[in-house]
Amino acid sequence: MAVHAIVLAGGAGTRFWPASRSAMPKQLLALVGSTSLLEATVRRIAPLVPPSNVVVATGAHLLGQTREALASHAGVQFFAEPTPRNTAPCIAWVTADILRRDPDALCVVLPSDHFITAPTAFIASASRALDAARLGFLATIGITPTRPDTGFGYIEIGREIENGIREAKRFVEKPDRARAEEYVASGQFAWNAGMFFYSARTMMDAVREHMPELAAGIDEMLASPNAVDTVFPKLPAISIDHGVMEKARSVAVVAGDFGWSDLGSWESAWELASKDANGNVAPDGSVLIDARGNLIWDRSEKKRTYALVGVSDLVIVETDDAVLIVPRSRAQDVKLVVEELRAAGIKRI
Amino acid sequence: MAVHAIVLAGGAGTRFWPASRSAMPKQLLALVGSTSLLEATVRRIAPLVPPSNVVVATGAHLLGQTREALASHAGVQFFAEPTPRNTAPCIAWVTADILRRDPDALCVVLPSDHFITAPTAFIASASRALDAARLGFLATIGITPTRPDTGFGYIEIGREIENGIREAKRFVEKPDRARAEEYVASGQFAWNAGMFFYSARTMMDAVREHMPELAAGIDEMLASPNAVDTVFPKLPAISIDHGVMEKARSVAVVAGDFGWSDLGSWESAWELASKDANGNVAPDGSVLIDARGNLIWDRSEKKRTYALVGVSDLVIVETDDAVLIVPRSRAQDVKLVVEELRAAGIKRI
Repeated sequence: MAVHAIVLAGGAGTRFWPASRSAMPKQLLALVGSTSLLEATVRRIAPLVPPSNVVVATGAHLLGQTREALASHAGVQFFAEPTPRNTAPCIAWVTADILRRDPDALCVVLPSDHFITAPTAFIASASRALDAARLGFLATIGITPTRPDTGFGYIEIGREIENGIREAKRFVEKPDRARAEEYVASGQFAWNAGMFFYSARTMMDAVREHMPELAAGIDEMLASPNAVDTVFPKLPAISIDHGVMEKARSVAVVAGDFGWSDLGSWESAWELASKDANGNVAPDGSVLIDARGNLIWDRSEKKRTYALVGVSDLVIVETDDAVLIVPRSRAQDVKLVVEELRAAGIKRI
Repeated sequence: MAVHAIVLAGGAGTRFWPASRSAMPKQLLALVGSTSLLEATVRRIAPLVPPSNVVVATGAHLLGQTREALASHAGVQFFAEPTPRNTAPCIAWVTADILRRDPDALCVVLPSDHFITAPTAFIASASRALDAARLGFLATIGITPTRPDTGFGYIEIGREIENGIREAKRFVEKPDRARAEEYVASGQFAWNAGMFFYSARTMMDAVREHMPELAAGIDEMLASPNAVDTVFPKLPAISIDHGVMEKARSVAVVAGDFGWSDLGSWESAWELASKDANGNVAPDGSVLIDARGNLIWDRSEKKRTYALVGVSDLVIVETDDAVLIVPRSRAQDVKLVVEELRAAGIKRI
């Protein structure tokens, strides 16, 4: 049973402006260290999936850069969504295509814009989740929560099926604060990190059962590959979580505790980066005097000397056409900048 | 009696790093507004001195940029000091050269790196100082002090000679704090802004009397203009204040109250610039959210969008090879950055 990976790399977003743009989304950036999040995702799964079994799904307009970001990973294949339709159509179509070539295929679905500090522990959890997939489960990894975060969906964990594999009782949407606190206190809930493990056949059976309209579209595309451009854009735009996982029987969850972060803001980029003794993240050659807890993220073309004197806990982002300076504690407010630029009719956001 | 101006533009300095460099000193920068301080100096004196009577003295290594900065002021002449010897040799030599061509010449000596907010009031004071020069005084303008600054020399003001022209009793060096407070409280002291007004003949007589060694060197250069390169570097390196003004009899002072600033730091650049309602000085198109009292000074080649969110009272300076971020209140500490870069052996400071 060969293992295939479906890496979801179609995302856009503005939380990392001015580094992330519509033409340069988060997964293509080296937000922490020097490797793009996408490439780190492909490298991380390599012990379980060789590059030739990796399909990277992205938007048609991002295909060029996405290929380029993985230029050193020969064999990786790409699927360019003609138009974004959330995750169910993309995952189901790529899975169906894998199934056609490999009736016994196991699949791993991975977001491409998260960060993981302990890749070995990740592989251990993923291996266990693949065991669950071999047993016929649609499996996922539930991240052990470290705080009552209201920004994630949660998975309620049920009885143990087998060593480390547990029943996933239900998927719940982003909760309010009180509920999130309840969940975390109970010890019965984990964060849904959007990673899925299944045999291609099990998934396609579930799609057929719970999303017949999607299954019909996929049959049409299987019959006539040239139909993708016309059929795909009409498929139901729904997530695999809502469309399949929440409805399916035999859903399993494996605990994940490997320093996972969804890298939600510049603040988390600072948290995850290597820092000097004063908590600064700065390019080599920077002059830092009475400066603490700052993040300097520079991807402008010319190499420049940064000098910070007497400033603390700032995020400083420099690109060739924009500069952002914001306290780390207000990193979320980058969205206000993007809104203002949009309101002013600035195109390159 | 034609009036000639000698503009001193040989200065270097590090207080405006990374804007000012050894190859791009303060006077060539548009630190406030869009005109370089040097060009503003030439424009400001224009009601009294036409460009063809202006001599700009600068260092040989700065001659190219200095000419360029004044390209739109046809007729201005330049004297390139073979090597810096403080102000007395330069002023005396240019004065001697003017005197040779115009025995009745009056001269105005002006620093080129100061800022004046009220040019009309400046011309009024300068005219009165030229009146004193016509009466045979070595005259200066004493800036009415607004605070007990310990960074300036002071001039003690004596009896009135004629309407608005007073005796300069003595020049005193930068005082300590207590003495500066005394001076300002007394109302009898003014700041020495390094501006001098005299007839060329009076000055050369004073040089001959008080600096005979300098006078001898100048005679040598007058006799053989090709000797400048060999004689000038051996002239006594002393300021005109110490060498002549402090020793001369008949020294007069005229009060100056025209918004003078020596632009000592980025803090004063912010003070003097036009600000928005929140006290920010920023390039057009900047996005400023909950940002107050910041100065963004950008002379990098590419036009960039600046976004500041939730930061106050910062100085942000961006050039093509360096970025400085420092609270306005610590603008003086730019010197620490320059020291650190020098210690690290960085050349381009």
